[in-house]
Amino acid sequence: MPGTLASLGEAAALSRIFPRLPSATAQLLGPGDDAAVIAAPDGRYVVTTDMMIHGPDFRLAWSTPHDLGWKAAASNLADVAAMGAVPTALVVAIAAPSDSAIELLEGIADGLREACEAMAPGCGVVGGDLSVSPTLTIAVTAFGDLQGRAPVLRSGASVGDTVAVSGPLGEAAAALRILFEQAVDGSGAPDARLAAALRHLTAAQLAPTPPIAAGPLAAAAGATAMLDLSDGLAIDSARLAQASGVTIDFDSASLGSDPVLALAGGEDHSLLATFPPGAALPPGFRRLGTCLAGAGITVDGVPCQCDSGWDPYRGWNGAAG
Amino acid sequence: MPGTLASLGEAAALSRIFPRLPSATAQLLGPGDDAAVIAAPDGRYVVTTDMMIHGPDFRLAWSTPHDLGWKAAASNLADVAAMGAVPTALVVAIAAPSDSAIELLEGIADGLREACEAMAPGCGVVGGDLSVSPTLTIAVTAFGDLQGRAPVLRSGASVGDTVAVSGPLGEAAAALRILFEQAVDGSGAPDARLAAALRHLTAAQLAPTPPIAAGPLAAAAGATAMLDLSDGLAIDSARLAQASGVTIDFDSASLGSDPVLALAGGEDHSLLATFPPGAALPPGFRRLGTCLAGAGITVDGVPCQCDSGWDPYRGWNGAAG
Repeated sequence: MPGTLASLGEAAALSRIFPRLPSATAQLLGPGDDAAVIAAPDGRYVVTTDMMIHGPDFRLAWSTPHDLGWKAAASNLADVAAMGAVPTALVVAIAAPSDSAIELLEGIADGLREACEAMAPGCGVVGGDLSVSPTLTIAVTAFGDLQGRAPVLRSGASVGDTVAVSGPLGEAAAALRILFEQAVDGSGAPDARLAAALRHLTAAQLAPTPPIAAGPLAAAAGATAMLDLSDGLAIDSARLAQASGVTIDFDSASLGSDPVLALAGGEDHSLLATFPPGAALPPGFRRLGTCLAGAGITVDGVPCQCDSGWDPYRGWNGAAG
Repeated sequence: MPGTLASLGEAAALSRIFPRLPSATAQLLGPGDDAAVIAAPDGRYVVTTDMMIHGPDFRLAWSTPHDLGWKAAASNLADVAAMGAVPTALVVAIAAPSDSAIELLEGIADGLREACEAMAPGCGVVGGDLSVSPTLTIAVTAFGDLQGRAPVLRSGASVGDTVAVSGPLGEAAAALRILFEQAVDGSGAPDARLAAALRHLTAAQLAPTPPIAAGPLAAAAGATAMLDLSDGLAIDSARLAQASGVTIDFDSASLGSDPVLALAGGEDHSLLATFPPGAALPPGFRRLGTCLAGAGITVDGVPCQCDSGWDPYRGWNGAAG
């Protein structure tokens, strides 16, 4: 088939992708040699990696190629931001079926570029790898610059600290519920036409826009602990509480109209941070509660069951399409 | 099934893997937070990424889990070394079927550790990601330290330079031929018992040991250009020749008893480098030829056809198992 990866070959496919990729201001040497060279002005760099797999992480009937590139960038940028670092560069490995159209890779490249432009200007793709696989797979490794600051760990919260968040709570999960309930055909299989009609309700899941710039802002404002909300507020705040040796007590009034969704919903990639008592919260953060003595998480002082959340080895029903 | 990834869940699987991973001396902050922090003493770092996919890149009937970890490390370490850098750290994303035994991940971790210990002491795994996929996939991103030197590019060779290599030529391809010819059952499908019996002949393919330390040695000795031989001497030397604007002329006598295999065979991950005329070659390098005016590659002055080599989108027969 003309226009498939198999008919084009790797060199031609790369020549179609490269012009679409964002360039990185920290890049000293870019794609085309055995490796790239990136600047690390303060003598350190932040690194995180995250893989997206067709099936457990996305469905091609629901996500456009642009969505895939955007979300792969967003989820990795959020991990860099959660350390208080400014994202500087990505490397991207893509494995696709050999009968895929070149437009799949072009769309992913466009999504990577527009996500970087929107959420992390100056961050770009400095290298990558193309492979063939029956299962479409996108592996991104992201880098960041701490700008001389200490990284903001999960373990730094103290009793009395204010707990705050930047970004939505539960919106990605609500959008996923809409897709599973309304963007499937009679047999329950993902349906592209129905998904397209629901697009205005599902962007928070398919192409999330986490507040990347809020990470370095929080670090500069003295955040004592921070992480990105990938598995949901309940699970992730319990991780921060455990690492820091505190209880996190949420005010139910701060959790919106559906506190259960706000606590259980994953994939928002919002930034949860703690700040010293009385500190002014940086722009974009809103107060959710307080760190207390003890362990675990509570809502208005009542212990919260946190057994929901996403486990990649348990959570995926392969029969679901 | 007890002992599968699905029954253990992600947290338990990680707790089985972490103790087996090598630690990195350059690690400032390791696994367990949103991202790792790595030292970059000279204010730069080298980055490369490479993915291994079940089917096109390996068969579980032929490779042990230990082999997979070893080879994933080796191929990425070679790309770092080919820039003249000392490998410092890896991040590793693994996607495996949920019914995989935990021993699969443990074996991969053991292979990563022993490969780093053998080829790049001090290099370790600083982070990663576990996912579920019907197609076993290993994505490694590797980092290196240039120790204040300029990176050794593909484009730096000049007319008159000596062409040299460190590591074998054609051994990985010869081993792969043995596997395809002798480690298959009557229907042509990979056979684990036959592969095990041939192990003494196939290690160069299944668990290659490229000369990682030779990369920084070559850089310190003044190498003008360098790359790692992943697609074969003919293809890769043509890349270096094109980037540098020279012809590379090989002496057939330097190519061993099977020059065609030496030129066409891929996956050795040996290091091909050029050195100024008359320069003493660093330990481990042997002379293969000379850079001449012109373009392309020649053997004893005769133009070489370089149309063989591995293209991931064209080279894989999905029906081959």
